[in-house]
Amino acid sequence: TVPPEGTKQKIELRVERVLHVGPTDPAKYPIPKTKLSLEFLRDHIHLRPRTNTISAVARIRNALAFATHSFFQEHGFLYVHTPIVTTSDCEGAGEMFQVTTLINEAEKLDKELIENPPPTEADIEAARLTVMQKGEVVAQLKAAKATRDDISAAVAGLKIAKEDLSRLEERAKLKPGIPKKDGKIDYAQDFFSRQAFLTVSGQLQVETYACAVTSVYTFGPTFRAEHSHTSRHLAEFWMVEPEIAFADLQDDMNCAEAYVKYMCQWLLDKCLDDMELMAKLYDKGCIDRLRMVSSTPFERISYTEAVRLLEEAVRGGKEFEKNVEWGIDLASEHERYLTEEIFKKPVIVYNYPKGIKAFYMRLNDDSKTVAAMDILVPKVGELIGGSQREERYEVIQQRIVEMGLPLEPYDWYLDLRRYGTVKHCGFGLGFERMILFATGIDNIRDVIPFPRYPGRADL
Amino acid sequence: TVPPEGTKQKIELRVERVLHVGPTDPAKYPIPKTKLSLEFLRDHIHLRPRTNTISAVARIRNALAFATHSFFQEHGFLYVHTPIVTTSDCEGAGEMFQVTTLINEAEKLDKELIENPPPTEADIEAARLTVMQKGEVVAQLKAAKATRDDISAAVAGLKIAKEDLSRLEERAKLKPGIPKKDGKIDYAQDFFSRQAFLTVSGQLQVETYACAVTSVYTFGPTFRAEHSHTSRHLAEFWMVEPEIAFADLQDDMNCAEAYVKYMCQWLLDKCLDDMELMAKLYDKGCIDRLRMVSSTPFERISYTEAVRLLEEAVRGGKEFEKNVEWGIDLASEHERYLTEEIFKKPVIVYNYPKGIKAFYMRLNDDSKTVAAMDILVPKVGELIGGSQREERYEVIQQRIVEMGLPLEPYDWYLDLRRYGTVKHCGFGLGFERMILFATGIDNIRDVIPFPRYPGRADL
Repeated sequence: TVPPEGTKQKIELRVERVLHVGPTDPAKYPIPKTKLSLEFLRDHIHLRPRTNTISAVARIRNALAFATHSFFQEHGFLYVHTPIVTTSDCEGAGEMFQVTTLINEAEKLDKELIENPPPTEADIEAARLTVMQKGEVVAQLKAAKATRDDISAAVAGLKIAKEDLSRLEERAKLKPGIPKKDGKIDYAQDFFSRQAFLTVSGQLQVETYACAVTSVYTFGPTFRAEHSHTSRHLAEFWMVEPEIAFADLQDDMNCAEAYVKYMCQWLLDKCLDDMELMAKLYDKGCIDRLRMVSSTPFERISYTEAVRLLEEAVRGGKEFEKNVEWGIDLASEHERYLTEEIFKKPVIVYNYPKGIKAFYMRLNDDSKTVAAMDILVPKVGELIGGSQREERYEVIQQRIVEMGLPLEPYDWYLDLRRYGTVKHCGFGLGFERMILFATGIDNIRDVIPFPRYPGRADL
Repeated sequence: TVPPEGTKQKIELRVERVLHVGPTDPAKYPIPKTKLSLEFLRDHIHLRPRTNTISAVARIRNALAFATHSFFQEHGFLYVHTPIVTTSDCEGAGEMFQVTTLINEAEKLDKELIENPPPTEADIEAARLTVMQKGEVVAQLKAAKATRDDISAAVAGLKIAKEDLSRLEERAKLKPGIPKKDGKIDYAQDFFSRQAFLTVSGQLQVETYACAVTSVYTFGPTFRAEHSHTSRHLAEFWMVEPEIAFADLQDDMNCAEAYVKYMCQWLLDKCLDDMELMAKLYDKGCIDRLRMVSSTPFERISYTEAVRLLEEAVRGGKEFEKNVEWGIDLASEHERYLTEEIFKKPVIVYNYPKGIKAFYMRLNDDSKTVAAMDILVPKVGELIGGSQREERYEVIQQRIVEMGLPLEPYDWYLDLRRYGTVKHCGFGLGFERMILFATGIDNIRDVIPFPRYPGRADL
């Protein structure tokens, strides 16, 4: 019912009956009804969804996830599940988690060898002797033309002795610890018969589908084994990665801009209550920001122009920690200055120096830059990174070699250019970054239900 | 345009111009235009989406994924991302993949120690001697009342010598190989400071959200490190797991039945072309099956009744490989006989013996059975497994102990009962099983884009 005038509540409950469904002792309840810090709640990960902030974040996260699916489905994209366990180490990056059963199997074996020690040389010698003796018995019986029954019994005894011996010899070979070959870990004995990792991106794999069925996207967990303790990094996070065939960098920017706008409008339409809580508790301007982003065309400037603007700012007295010059990878401080101070709206920076970007990005005609683009937004900086992919077989092969990467692991990726290549592009959006941007919450650990970071993986 | 009468095509293309976008040499193309077996295509995982079967499966898979989100969103469920990396080994099952950075770090260290060998005892002794000598120099200078500058220079020299020594002592401690403590692997040094695994189910974690915000679901990858080479098992597969608060087993069955029906109807409405290809190439009856399932109420029988029916069949001459008696876990042959032969439609079997089910399933008043339910469908057998969860603190604690599991790892799970418990239930649907059921395709490796199984994890 409508509450009496002068109260703050939006609705009023008229209680008829109160049932004790599951009582709790308020004195012992770990998250009592006082203002608790988000940091404190992180130590009660299983109870924190009962708080107003974390449940509102859950609804916002859910809304953004369904908005993502709705946007791409409405535009004819197919959702493709790229693999989580992968054997391609995609950018030569070392920060991957390994997935293995070798340690577990080695521990099982170690335990088994302690409970049931391997045979000694003497055990094997004894078994060999038994085989010899039983063999002699058989020979003697045969020589003595014994009955068929007696001979078969002796042969059966010999067979068992031989089996015992070979079992002992097999067990004698068992070595505790992780199996090795030529001094290195023998991955042929691992579950997938080779070294396997958790994916850092589904992009390369999803390209196989884009080059077959045109427009696809993946939305799944990705992993980085980086020891970074910042408020912007997680070891496990979700990424949205669309990939579009018959499309160039302009199309890529258009798609990314439309997608971000769609999500902002979606939250305004379906999550205003929860957004109001965010505005009240965490970021006064968050609703206005959504309105601005959903309705304002994004600024588009080349990397060269971005550097020129930053240099101009430096000449005007602005101080950055990292020096600005053509060729650098823009730091977060530069990105935020561009979007928050200079343009006060989302900025798409495109055509980056090839030296700071991945091998698969399409080389521009200037031979110095690649057709890459990043979308920078107020509050978080880089929200999206994308590029047109290099579709020319000779060029991409040369780029792989140039960057000192081995060709063989990319053979399948080159096949996409070798057999009926097609212009295509795509981008990746860090899903948690989008939630930070929308809610204004500061720490990424508070916008994913079960945060994983160095030293912590609760539940 | 409409094709001339008498042809088989549904549409006809009038070509005006042909562009060579990306030519390929047909003589070298690995998947030429002949009838290729699905098994052959598995060896060309990056090119197989270009075939009619695999692209149709991709569209069907996409449709079922979006149908899943649409169904739960329409019914007010929140999509919750449960963790992929987990530290809870949830049912004491041993078949989990381990996630680690220890091997990688050990290999880096080994390499580093070879390139740059650790100090010898003599090196350290020499460094100790230097410290002693530098210390004496300082003492002498002080005793001789030398200038302040001379003394500071000597003190600085001593400081450097001490630092050198402690650096050498630190390096001398480095041991090649995986770090150990008390003979066991020292997981305190692993990325998450403890042993971590890939999840086998998001259920226990998603319950923390159900017990906070009522209706939730998770849809993500799950993993089993089982060495099974069957056509029904994958090491990496996707699961849909809804969880509902204030709901019992009846509600659970209603929700699951409605969800399966919804998916079937969705395919009939949106994927009929692709389903017709499946009917033509793989399973004549697949479209009729979708129609039947979407329109027929599922049969619901208790486990006890199911066993009675199977025993009756045995008396009537039916032969099963595995003996039927009350208490057994129904085998696939039993499940398929119930759904395909006896009822010829989906069957929900409920109230299973507690001995064959997990500790978290709610104990019925008979103390012999638990409120579990499985949905069996023609073609694949078990498609869904679910239960009402044990919400009574004392009962679930006792069940954990009864099953010989340790209590401590479940402490957080018990908290959900300790602090304001609520009746709740949920189920899990193997997403690839659903695609097998819909398409009639035989091998699960052909309905996931990048199949992972023992010995194989391509790309």
